[in-house]
Amino acid sequence: MKIIGIDPGTNILGYCILEIKDKKPKIIKSGVLKMNKEKNPYEKLRLILETTTKLIEENKPEVLSIEAPFYSKNIQSMHKLGRAQGVAIAVAISQGLDIYEYSPREIKQSVTGNGNASKNQIAAMVKSILNLSEMPETFDETDAIAVALCHFYRQNRIAQKKSYSSW
Amino acid sequence: MKIIGIDPGTNILGYCILEIKDKKPKIIKSGVLKMNKEKNPYEKLRLILETTTKLIEENKPEVLSIEAPFYSKNIQSMHKLGRAQGVAIAVAISQGLDIYEYSPREIKQSVTGNGNASKNQIAAMVKSILNLSEMPETFDETDAIAVALCHFYRQNRIAQKKSYSSW
Repeated sequence: MKIIGIDPGTNILGYCILEIKDKKPKIIKSGVLKMNKEKNPYEKLRLILETTTKLIEENKPEVLSIEAPFYSKNIQSMHKLGRAQGVAIAVAISQGLDIYEYSPREIKQSVTGNGNASKNQIAAMVKSILNLSEMPETFDETDAIAVALCHFYRQNRIAQKKSYSSW
Repeated sequence: MKIIGIDPGTNILGYCILEIKDKKPKIIKSGVLKMNKEKNPYEKLRLILETTTKLIEENKPEVLSIEAPFYSKNIQSMHKLGRAQGVAIAVAISQGLDIYEYSPREIKQSVTGNGNASKNQIAAMVKSILNLSEMPETFDETDAIAVALCHFYRQNRIAQKKSYSSW
């Protein structure tokens, strides 16, 4: 199974394709889409559309895992973030992916065991869990990996619970 | 030229295809997509995606005209609205349409001459301008027609200004 993890921002979008083989997660691809030099907001949405479409077409993941919003930002930022997320979700839905959304706390908890972990701690755990030789360049990238990992752990736990209950 | 006007909500989405022929606007199609019975938020986004795609493929408008948010709602509503708009904008961008956004005040001003017009006044003006035999059923539909009309008037005014200045 492959999971696409996306951390969609309006200036930088982090992404990751995580493959699960023999119950072990492995990164196929991860990176960021930088949009900070693009002033036109629709061009930003176009970039998100094109990048997400290409990632899904090339890697054929079955699931999109995305961070649920943490409603602390201002109303204008939340609206812009909603648009960026809407584009990524629309692309995934139109290509038949299932959508899963996890709160920042759930992601931190499942990746580090601590729901209040810092971005640095998440990055360090991501590097360790996936045996990465180098730390990803930005937190946008590690956050995208973390949300994909979160889905892997959650599904795994549900599968384990199911097999316990079928004893 | 054809304009698609969209008033995207999370429960009802109003739409309209407005054709401009001999500098006169005419409705080709208008209506609403009701999503209030759908509880799954991703299914709502899928419905918006499918409806917008179908409208654009069947009618081939060159422009999407959409209402810019009025930042008065709560942060969660704005985020949901952003997602719904993001889906509609993504579909339009991917099919090569130009995107234009107008504030509620601009729309009211250009359609009724009054930036503080009520929804009833907008509906009445829409019916009168377009010689509709019946009033559209909902304000979501008249709002979608109004935002398309707003783009027509704005472009017309710009075209007039350009021809004045080229004297």
